[in-house]
Amino acid sequence: MSDFALRVRQQDDFSGWYQAAVRGADLAEDSGVRGCMIIKPWGMGIWDRIRHTLGARIRETGHDDYYFPLLIPLSHFQSEAEHVEGFAKEMAVVTHHRVKPIDGRLQPDPASQLEEPLIIRPTSETIIGSAMSKWIKSYRDLPLLLNQWANVMRWEMRTRMFLRTSEFLWQEGHTAHANGEEAMAETEQMLEVYREIASDVLALHVLTGAKPAHERFPGAVETLAIEAMMRDGKALQAGTSHYLGTNFSTAQNIKFQDETGAWQLAHTTSWGASTRLIGALIMAHGDDDGLKLPPAVAPHQIVIVPLVRSDEEKAVVYEYVDGLARELRSRAWRNEPLRVFVDRGNDKPVNKRWNWIRKGVPLILEVGPREAAGGQVTCYRRDRLRDEDGRLARNTFGRDEAAERCVAECDSVQSGLRESARAFTQDNIVRFDGSLDELDAFVAERPTQWLQVGWSAPEGPALQAFLDRLATSRLTVRILVPETPEGARCIATGAPATAFVLIAKAY
Amino acid sequence: MSDFALRVRQQDDFSGWYQAAVRGADLAEDSGVRGCMIIKPWGMGIWDRIRHTLGARIRETGHDDYYFPLLIPLSHFQSEAEHVEGFAKEMAVVTHHRVKPIDGRLQPDPASQLEEPLIIRPTSETIIGSAMSKWIKSYRDLPLLLNQWANVMRWEMRTRMFLRTSEFLWQEGHTAHANGEEAMAETEQMLEVYREIASDVLALHVLTGAKPAHERFPGAVETLAIEAMMRDGKALQAGTSHYLGTNFSTAQNIKFQDETGAWQLAHTTSWGASTRLIGALIMAHGDDDGLKLPPAVAPHQIVIVPLVRSDEEKAVVYEYVDGLARELRSRAWRNEPLRVFVDRGNDKPVNKRWNWIRKGVPLILEVGPREAAGGQVTCYRRDRLRDEDGRLARNTFGRDEAAERCVAECDSVQSGLRESARAFTQDNIVRFDGSLDELDAFVAERPTQWLQVGWSAPEGPALQAFLDRLATSRLTVRILVPETPEGARCIATGAPATAFVLIAKAY
Repeated sequence: MSDFALRVRQQDDFSGWYQAAVRGADLAEDSGVRGCMIIKPWGMGIWDRIRHTLGARIRETGHDDYYFPLLIPLSHFQSEAEHVEGFAKEMAVVTHHRVKPIDGRLQPDPASQLEEPLIIRPTSETIIGSAMSKWIKSYRDLPLLLNQWANVMRWEMRTRMFLRTSEFLWQEGHTAHANGEEAMAETEQMLEVYREIASDVLALHVLTGAKPAHERFPGAVETLAIEAMMRDGKALQAGTSHYLGTNFSTAQNIKFQDETGAWQLAHTTSWGASTRLIGALIMAHGDDDGLKLPPAVAPHQIVIVPLVRSDEEKAVVYEYVDGLARELRSRAWRNEPLRVFVDRGNDKPVNKRWNWIRKGVPLILEVGPREAAGGQVTCYRRDRLRDEDGRLARNTFGRDEAAERCVAECDSVQSGLRESARAFTQDNIVRFDGSLDELDAFVAERPTQWLQVGWSAPEGPALQAFLDRLATSRLTVRILVPETPEGARCIATGAPATAFVLIAKAY
Repeated sequence: MSDFALRVRQQDDFSGWYQAAVRGADLAEDSGVRGCMIIKPWGMGIWDRIRHTLGARIRETGHDDYYFPLLIPLSHFQSEAEHVEGFAKEMAVVTHHRVKPIDGRLQPDPASQLEEPLIIRPTSETIIGSAMSKWIKSYRDLPLLLNQWANVMRWEMRTRMFLRTSEFLWQEGHTAHANGEEAMAETEQMLEVYREIASDVLALHVLTGAKPAHERFPGAVETLAIEAMMRDGKALQAGTSHYLGTNFSTAQNIKFQDETGAWQLAHTTSWGASTRLIGALIMAHGDDDGLKLPPAVAPHQIVIVPLVRSDEEKAVVYEYVDGLARELRSRAWRNEPLRVFVDRGNDKPVNKRWNWIRKGVPLILEVGPREAAGGQVTCYRRDRLRDEDGRLARNTFGRDEAAERCVAECDSVQSGLRESARAFTQDNIVRFDGSLDELDAFVAERPTQWLQVGWSAPEGPALQAFLDRLATSRLTVRILVPETPEGARCIATGAPATAFVLIAKAY
């Protein structure tokens, strides 16, 4: 039994482990500004890779990049408020446009009060809808397919880095279509894009499906989501795609003349994925030694740590290492040059090694005088870091085959993490056919598993009673499962089930 | 004399021409939110290219990407206010965190008033300095080299798209060093990076130099800038790099222990470039037909317009065009595949051609049945669009040589625009050795030229009198010219000059 790189173990305190993993990888830290984090280079490096790969898929599916204003006039939310009982939204409100010293203390200048307050965008449906209503005149202007990468802000009371912060980074897609079929096809297409990126790039196993009615985005006719299982068994919603019907186009007056000259309301969609995906990566793959990054999203896929004790050793080893790095960078993996970093820092080699382990670098290569003399390379694979006894597992291979091996190892780490996430997820979903009264006891025995249960889309008091019951075990309904229910019964009402749903604790 | 693509000509109304150029290229439009624009796909495409190329240079020079909070507590500006007489800043102030309906109208909830107002970042020196003061303990932590890509907001009363908007996009670099020499070297290095990008990517001719003391960034010991000449002769400051001495480290308590264990203040720098660069591109290269984009920054370097009137023609021409596009995309220019777009839209070919001309696409290829049958391609070069009589100038070349030609033409357009900007700028800077009393008459004769004049760093009333005099001709001092003044005399005081400065009207 050896020590681990993080001070908190997953099994002892998952939440403490998460914080230790974020800190250990130096991904982000608290900013002192409420609910806002500072994203540090390793975190930004991961986000840039997500942006790079997801951005390419969004453009390939025909969407253009725009940038809309950060501030939205308060009146844009008025129609929403009129439709939502007890409407109150946690949003940052700009009320003044100047500060000046008053009694020696800097304060908002009362003379600069805005006639209409402005809201920092929590999401951009209203302001983009307002632009769409100007741009769309005819069926020829449809579909209109927009995307933007932006910061957004929701005033959160309880925050957790990457998972729930007041300010976060995301992309938000907004589209308008001539009819519901096309808009729904778009909604499904973008869910599929999220699934692909989650699966192929982030190596997550995600479950996809529609949210039950009570979990939909306000104003959505249908909300589709990808849900991933974290290592503590909780669900994390990692991307959503909404079919908004004509609800937003009615409020924003997004109309077009069809081929007969008649005016029609456009059908709109919106879909988004955020820096939350970094939280998903950490909690789906990480272990007690820190992050495990899939090569497709790792800022460095390979880090080379030179092991040197003297200036003579340095001369020999650095030359060997530089040649190795050059050759590796000349090789492509997934159509891009391998991302290789040589750690020339002044820290001790053993500290460097553990630093890159905590950061989740897929392959860590160590080269000392012995390797340089013998034409060899020592390799640690982050996803198979330890042997059965908990000792570090290393591999040595020849310098000649290093490039070939590294490319193959990238493939292997990427698919290995993916397969591990799949197996873990599938092993932890159980069918529950019992009654609502038997639920608590069933959950108490398997507190980290997801339940697949029959569902008949209950409404009103039956739904409320069910949700209240779930709440006692902190469970929520995640998504509908696209499977035929084979004579199952609805957990909430006992009526014949029309679908399955997954229920789980969630972030 | 032919008609031009824009309705307003540069020589008639430069400001109207600028608006027509922005609209004609569909770069951006007004958002209805005060001072904020919507950046549209062609504008975002250009910005992405700037971000891509400048971002690479910033990383190559050792800077890491971070992301700091959008909102900055008002107290961070307090020390600044204490040092600036009559301090009042136009900034967006967040005072509440919730909205709710009061008397049927959505309003900030009085119960949600913040104890301390938050400012939307106008720039991030204070919040980044506050983080630096936590991160820096020892000389081993230096230099600390940060960069972020972000939106910022300054409440502007008179706005103009890309040139002066309340919200804009930029990168801001912030660094801390052990001493003034290193910090000044960093300041100069980043100015050089801006000069390189302006010159090699944007094909601008920029003049570099230090700002005179009265034009420095508040708190800076030295402000360096790149200045470009627009086609109306006005100067546009396109990037600045500041050496901040220990002014900000004193205010933010950024200290380190040196090798002897003594505590020292760090020396800091900051440097930024923004979406303003897009304004510079438009006004430095554009003409009465719209934008002219250098290939290095053009979202599409080549657009192919198929000329077809029937379905039969379509079959033949599209096959030819697709093969051409594939081959072109397989060729690299400046180490990246050529960016080629085939315009399959339903608009008439002649409208397509003019659309891409207004957008400034470097090479527009037209292929109809005649070209397809004859194995040829017709090419318009945006930078040499018209012959001496104002007629469109086209070139026809063989399909076999198309790829080779397009690569060569990209080089030629890039260097041609660069050379044209250089010649225009150099032709429009004149030395003025007269006295201050002769200045107005001299300027009246050459209202669009920059003047190079002797300078002895005047201060106090002499400076003020000089600036008042300049203001009557709407002139400002742009930068010091790194040249020996050969016995010239200071325009402001008549004393022997210690430097030259450039004076010009400016954006």
